[in-house]
Amino acid sequence: MLYEKDMPDSIDLGHHLSVVSRNRTLSPLKGLQKYFGKPGILSLAGGLPSPEYFPFERVGADILVAKSYADNSTSKGTFAWIWDFFSSKASTVPISVPKYPESPEDVNLATALQYGLARGLPQLQGVINELTSRIYQPAYANFVTLIHAGNTDGWMKIVTTLCNPGEGVLCSEWTYPSALATMVPYGIRSVPVKMDVQGMSSTSLRKTLTEWDEKGRGMRRPHVMYVVPVGQNPTGATMGAERKKEIYSICVEFDVIIVEDDPYYFLQEGPYRSPSQRLREQQTEMTDEKYIASLAPSFLKFDYQGRVVRLDTFSKIIAPGSRLGWFTCNPIFAERLERQGETSTQAPSGFGQSLITQLLLNWQFKGCLQWLKGLGLQYKQRRDFFIDCLFEKFHLEMAPAPYGLFEGTPIYFASQMRRGYRNEKADTRVLFSFVPPTSGMFIWFQLHFDGHPQLRELGQETLEMKLWTALAEGGLLIGPGSMFSADKAIEMSSQGHFRLSFSNATYDDLKKAVDIFEKVLREFHENA
Amino acid sequence: MLYEKDMPDSIDLGHHLSVVSRNRTLSPLKGLQKYFGKPGILSLAGGLPSPEYFPFERVGADILVAKSYADNSTSKGTFAWIWDFFSSKASTVPISVPKYPESPEDVNLATALQYGLARGLPQLQGVINELTSRIYQPAYANFVTLIHAGNTDGWMKIVTTLCNPGEGVLCSEWTYPSALATMVPYGIRSVPVKMDVQGMSSTSLRKTLTEWDEKGRGMRRPHVMYVVPVGQNPTGATMGAERKKEIYSICVEFDVIIVEDDPYYFLQEGPYRSPSQRLREQQTEMTDEKYIASLAPSFLKFDYQGRVVRLDTFSKIIAPGSRLGWFTCNPIFAERLERQGETSTQAPSGFGQSLITQLLLNWQFKGCLQWLKGLGLQYKQRRDFFIDCLFEKFHLEMAPAPYGLFEGTPIYFASQMRRGYRNEKADTRVLFSFVPPTSGMFIWFQLHFDGHPQLRELGQETLEMKLWTALAEGGLLIGPGSMFSADKAIEMSSQGHFRLSFSNATYDDLKKAVDIFEKVLREFHENA
Repeated sequence: MLYEKDMPDSIDLGHHLSVVSRNRTLSPLKGLQKYFGKPGILSLAGGLPSPEYFPFERVGADILVAKSYADNSTSKGTFAWIWDFFSSKASTVPISVPKYPESPEDVNLATALQYGLARGLPQLQGVINELTSRIYQPAYANFVTLIHAGNTDGWMKIVTTLCNPGEGVLCSEWTYPSALATMVPYGIRSVPVKMDVQGMSSTSLRKTLTEWDEKGRGMRRPHVMYVVPVGQNPTGATMGAERKKEIYSICVEFDVIIVEDDPYYFLQEGPYRSPSQRLREQQTEMTDEKYIASLAPSFLKFDYQGRVVRLDTFSKIIAPGSRLGWFTCNPIFAERLERQGETSTQAPSGFGQSLITQLLLNWQFKGCLQWLKGLGLQYKQRRDFFIDCLFEKFHLEMAPAPYGLFEGTPIYFASQMRRGYRNEKADTRVLFSFVPPTSGMFIWFQLHFDGHPQLRELGQETLEMKLWTALAEGGLLIGPGSMFSADKAIEMSSQGHFRLSFSNATYDDLKKAVDIFEKVLREFHENA
Repeated sequence: MLYEKDMPDSIDLGHHLSVVSRNRTLSPLKGLQKYFGKPGILSLAGGLPSPEYFPFERVGADILVAKSYADNSTSKGTFAWIWDFFSSKASTVPISVPKYPESPEDVNLATALQYGLARGLPQLQGVINELTSRIYQPAYANFVTLIHAGNTDGWMKIVTTLCNPGEGVLCSEWTYPSALATMVPYGIRSVPVKMDVQGMSSTSLRKTLTEWDEKGRGMRRPHVMYVVPVGQNPTGATMGAERKKEIYSICVEFDVIIVEDDPYYFLQEGPYRSPSQRLREQQTEMTDEKYIASLAPSFLKFDYQGRVVRLDTFSKIIAPGSRLGWFTCNPIFAERLERQGETSTQAPSGFGQSLITQLLLNWQFKGCLQWLKGLGLQYKQRRDFFIDCLFEKFHLEMAPAPYGLFEGTPIYFASQMRRGYRNEKADTRVLFSFVPPTSGMFIWFQLHFDGHPQLRELGQETLEMKLWTALAEGGLLIGPGSMFSADKAIEMSSQGHFRLSFSNATYDDLKKAVDIFEKVLREFHENA
């Protein structure tokens, strides 16, 4: 931890709050709260049903043991999933949440299913606080963790807490479209910043802020940034510590609040290596300390001023239907976000809160790390397998990108596979290019339409959709690149884009998907 | 059902939508949706984790059987809770939700815990639609039911969907403070309408709308109404069919959308009768049809134009921690509300959705009605018991209210109990008055400070808080009346107000609460 002390009082964070947030009324009972929950006091104050009338006497679950995936750390060949399939005897243990607790500190339904504080069950608060402080190691001591109903809900609450209509939010030029969709109706605009292989470029950020022309842009200089630093959506990039320090320091200089939306944090897959390289890799059991140190740090670790709001979610590490996650931020923002919760979502579902709390208490901190390590390895294997399939179906050559997003970085250029010596006219033009993702669920393809005869006539966006439709008709759905553009005015030259997810399909289907992609792409160019 | 046909196309509802709602972007994949979920198509489009990685293999619960409370329908004396206590052997049955379904139509975690549509599990949609159409019987056929994360969340979504900053919302002069707290930060003001013993007065509503002075008020005539028609919060009033028809017809005339927030709908307790009257009551098992017909109808039943948005919640009939409920409204509003969900809460928790769906499927429609009947009777018994306690501790006399909220209606006036003949100077002045609530969880006391020597000096609001504090110091927490005032400028004459809840405390504690109330109130007047 950089600092054991609180964030400096001299930093004025209050002026970042939006009009809506400042006006938000405090709980009308504020002055009376000293009497609440006083031992021996009878309360006929709230509209609470008696827990007697909750028709759930007990909820429970069979949960996977924490080490379910951790042992699968040996390097896998292309057909390893067959072995996984046959060896997958999920080992489970039962957890249970009774209506009435045996000890007052036990998780119980009489509390979890009752009206509760927007900040949620105390046991869950405890677990979340431990995960945050031990893994992310915030740079100041008085950080607050506060639950929300998933990062989409969390981002919505932040937008209305920090932004006023007419303001701009800094984001990467390619970004998560739902984050923009949340802002648009409130009249809050995206201010795209150029990217490179680590995500948002600090050079471009400084340029954007230094050269800000309030009149020309028609808005004040942005004071909020939205960033997905790990497994960037859609590019799969991972932002390292140095880049984060650079960006943080620019944000200090220009007084910008960093909103770190980090759902893929524990899906850090590292650099891609070929199957033969992977076979030579030493697989040693990592200690917890080494594992934590191996992860790209959170912006929180450098946040001595309290200007980071981090969004964590259980969506990718437990299940999306949890609709549960948490903010980590300074106490000023946390208080406003909690007030927001009181008049909208209130506390997230008590079923989810109690079952997830019981799961995490069962696993303990050590077990959580074991689960997360194992999960990360699963995604690494999926990423590796998917790129192996690309190697099988395309001729891939690595070379520095001459222009575009990854200019100067070595990337893979994919062309049609030569089909034996007889076919001397084999097409060697580049069909698409990519950087193997280092985190997350996605791979981002640049489609090279340079050689396509209809490029001049139709433009790259129409070609992108034509190819997208041909793929769908051929039986493969992927994400069209235009969805992810934060700046509709971006000069996209002759490139289209696709985002492909390797997170969910079976290994067999991932392989089939590459087959379809190869066939349809070939026909798209050949029959043009 | 009044109409089997759709609502008339000639009614223009679209102009009620707010700027925020109109701008809300459609899902960017809208044009591509025909390919989604097509059989045989491979999807690498979304960022979905594989259900393999959900650490929940099964969730389950022990649920109460539907008839748990339905048999308790015999009339109870004051000490009946003792018998209840000894006879309460909760009978439970197990329910279970596996990760993978045996048949595709079964509720399962692979779907419930995955990213899903904001409109929720299809099985839950089915159950909710059946409850809505069979119980509330909407007046048009193409109504839509859409889940939300509880009525607080639902109301928040409606406010941002229907209202623009600077507009006013019609509401009762005394109302649920959280509903107002949701509006205030968005610059939306409450427009209080006078009430009587059935809640919002139609006469006062017509007067407010007819005499609307846009310039004087500084806002256009309101086009949205917020109303809690059953178990009105805080007064406990129930609005009957005739009043609802009057209000609906005024809303047609002035083009107002009615938002019916109805969490206490199934807690309809009917008129209070004394213990001796109750003993003479015939208790016969009610058929389902008779039960449904006995309930005050929803505004939906008269809504031939689709101008009602109804908010239902599982908070009072299952448990508040469910954070699950549903809108019923016209298809135009429903589509906008669903888009709102996509960029904020998304679908409510999959744990709650799947467990509650399984509970309701286990109970079946008939069982649900049995549960609801039984629950209503429980609240009737609580209401009866609490008023019985008031009879034991105070001298209660019924007479028409000379002024105020219940002017002309017979209400109870409470004065100190005479203590035998020796005390000839027994104080007969009225200390408080009330109307026995006919639904819900609350009883609303008017505090008569007329005779209090400090009234002129301190005013009724300060006296109210002095008495509130004395009660809290004496061990009893209740809701201070000033919290519930929609109009801070209301002339409250010499009356203070308290809201007391009889929903949660044990019968023993309800009795103790009345004892404390009597003692503190007596001392408050005697020692003044």
